[in-house]
Amino acid sequence: MSIDQQAVTVIGLGSMGSALAAALLDRGHLVTVWNRTPDKARDLVERGARLAATPEEAVAASPLTLTCVFDEAVLRKLLTPIAGALAGRVVVNVTSGSAEQARELDAWLRSHGAEHLDGGIMTTPPGVGDPSMMFLYSGSSAAFDACRSTLQVLGDAVYLGADPGLASLYDTALLGLMWSTLTGWLHGSALVGADGVAAAAFTPVAVRWLTAVAGFMTTYAGQVDAGRYPGDDATVDVQIATVRHLVHAAQARGVDTELPELLESFMRRAAAAGHGSDSYAAVIEALRTSDTAQV
Amino acid sequence: MSIDQQAVTVIGLGSMGSALAAALLDRGHLVTVWNRTPDKARDLVERGARLAATPEEAVAASPLTLTCVFDEAVLRKLLTPIAGALAGRVVVNVTSGSAEQARELDAWLRSHGAEHLDGGIMTTPPGVGDPSMMFLYSGSSAAFDACRSTLQVLGDAVYLGADPGLASLYDTALLGLMWSTLTGWLHGSALVGADGVAAAAFTPVAVRWLTAVAGFMTTYAGQVDAGRYPGDDATVDVQIATVRHLVHAAQARGVDTELPELLESFMRRAAAAGHGSDSYAAVIEALRTSDTAQV
Repeated sequence: MSIDQQAVTVIGLGSMGSALAAALLDRGHLVTVWNRTPDKARDLVERGARLAATPEEAVAASPLTLTCVFDEAVLRKLLTPIAGALAGRVVVNVTSGSAEQARELDAWLRSHGAEHLDGGIMTTPPGVGDPSMMFLYSGSSAAFDACRSTLQVLGDAVYLGADPGLASLYDTALLGLMWSTLTGWLHGSALVGADGVAAAAFTPVAVRWLTAVAGFMTTYAGQVDAGRYPGDDATVDVQIATVRHLVHAAQARGVDTELPELLESFMRRAAAAGHGSDSYAAVIEALRTSDTAQV
Repeated sequence: MSIDQQAVTVIGLGSMGSALAAALLDRGHLVTVWNRTPDKARDLVERGARLAATPEEAVAASPLTLTCVFDEAVLRKLLTPIAGALAGRVVVNVTSGSAEQARELDAWLRSHGAEHLDGGIMTTPPGVGDPSMMFLYSGSSAAFDACRSTLQVLGDAVYLGADPGLASLYDTALLGLMWSTLTGWLHGSALVGADGVAAAAFTPVAVRWLTAVAGFMTTYAGQVDAGRYPGDDATVDVQIATVRHLVHAAQARGVDTELPELLESFMRRAAAAGHGSDSYAAVIEALRTSDTAQV
């Protein structure tokens, strides 16, 4: 596959799509844009982008098209009428959606002769163009290799594998990690704040502590994969004894107890299943439920 | 205050107390130990520690005594009969307990002429002696200054302030952050694991993502202190839309939905309180409840 890395099309000019197009323009790419409401393209056109009159014209203008629209329903409505224009093109879709949707899109695009990469953008629009930010991709490895240097303009391009659902799945899992971590940090900030400590004083200590927590994660990853959780350092039973301090400290300060109580209940479920002397990694057993539902 | 940094007493030889004594011995300190059951001291005595016959003799042997016992009740039972031996001594208590207990202990020790530091050890016994590990201290700043070089042997000694409750409170808050983060990571590992991704593949990406999350924490700390949460980068409303993907992805894979649903409910409470257009930092408002209970 040969890709002219200078010509890129961006479809969808919300704040993220606009940031993607702007980063490509900044690095000298020939950028064609299309948006349902063309006025959103005004700033980009002033900076040198070419505004296509139709999605079909937009896709025809470049070997590589980035799609970044509201959701998968909007994307399919947009692509279906122009299926005939997709053959031989690479579509990199960064529209948020599920792994299942990414896999269906991949099958559909391939059936029309297009290559497909699905992407997960692990930053906010102002972070686009920062090489320390992760952009996750999955799908055609040939397409990734061909587009890599262009994608690298947007942020650090990380290829996860051939399953096109992986980028969305990682994206979802990482957002869950973010919300858990931020909520745990806000909870801690509320606790120390009740005793007069500023979040600005607590946070550098919390950030440093996260480095140690990341070390535990790295150690425990091997335990998760092995399905064996030796509790050499600190056991689930020890953590259960300690989590009561957190519940009491929260109660005494008018801070939420639902989060520590849920965490405690996961630990107790792991202990009840025989993992009391195992490491915290055994809590994954309590997170795997038997109830699977249709999405 | 003058402290002979070579002589240190360690009371309580569980796995953590033994690790503290061993680290001090390794660095050439004259270490006196005491434990309720003296056989726990055998290895340390072989390595050069002196075994005191009574707690009183132990405290008398060094200007600085580290106490590391099962809980505050055990500690008070141990110290009360030897109150007369404490005058002019520094007691660094690293027994786990609440901020309130640390403040009461501090008042009691001061009433008997002792200086007191309360400590929170942010590592497991095998991490003792590693200078990258945090040991948190609060209480007498004079005592901290006098003991700092000795405490630095155990790990990086971080002084939090004169309120003796701070080390316990930070310890509790940081453990809450750890459990939240580890559980979020295990949840993500279960999600990607259901689609065939090893935790060892997911975790390096998760660890890297935590660096970005730590950046959000640093930005949001100022917002928490100001009580204003400008949603320039990503709003609570946007996160609410996205968290449904996480709930659905978990349901479809037989993975727990309680954690993402609790996180969603915090976001919805923040939005209902008028913070929909604010940043995620506004979720702290939903974590501050009006129900305070007696501990």
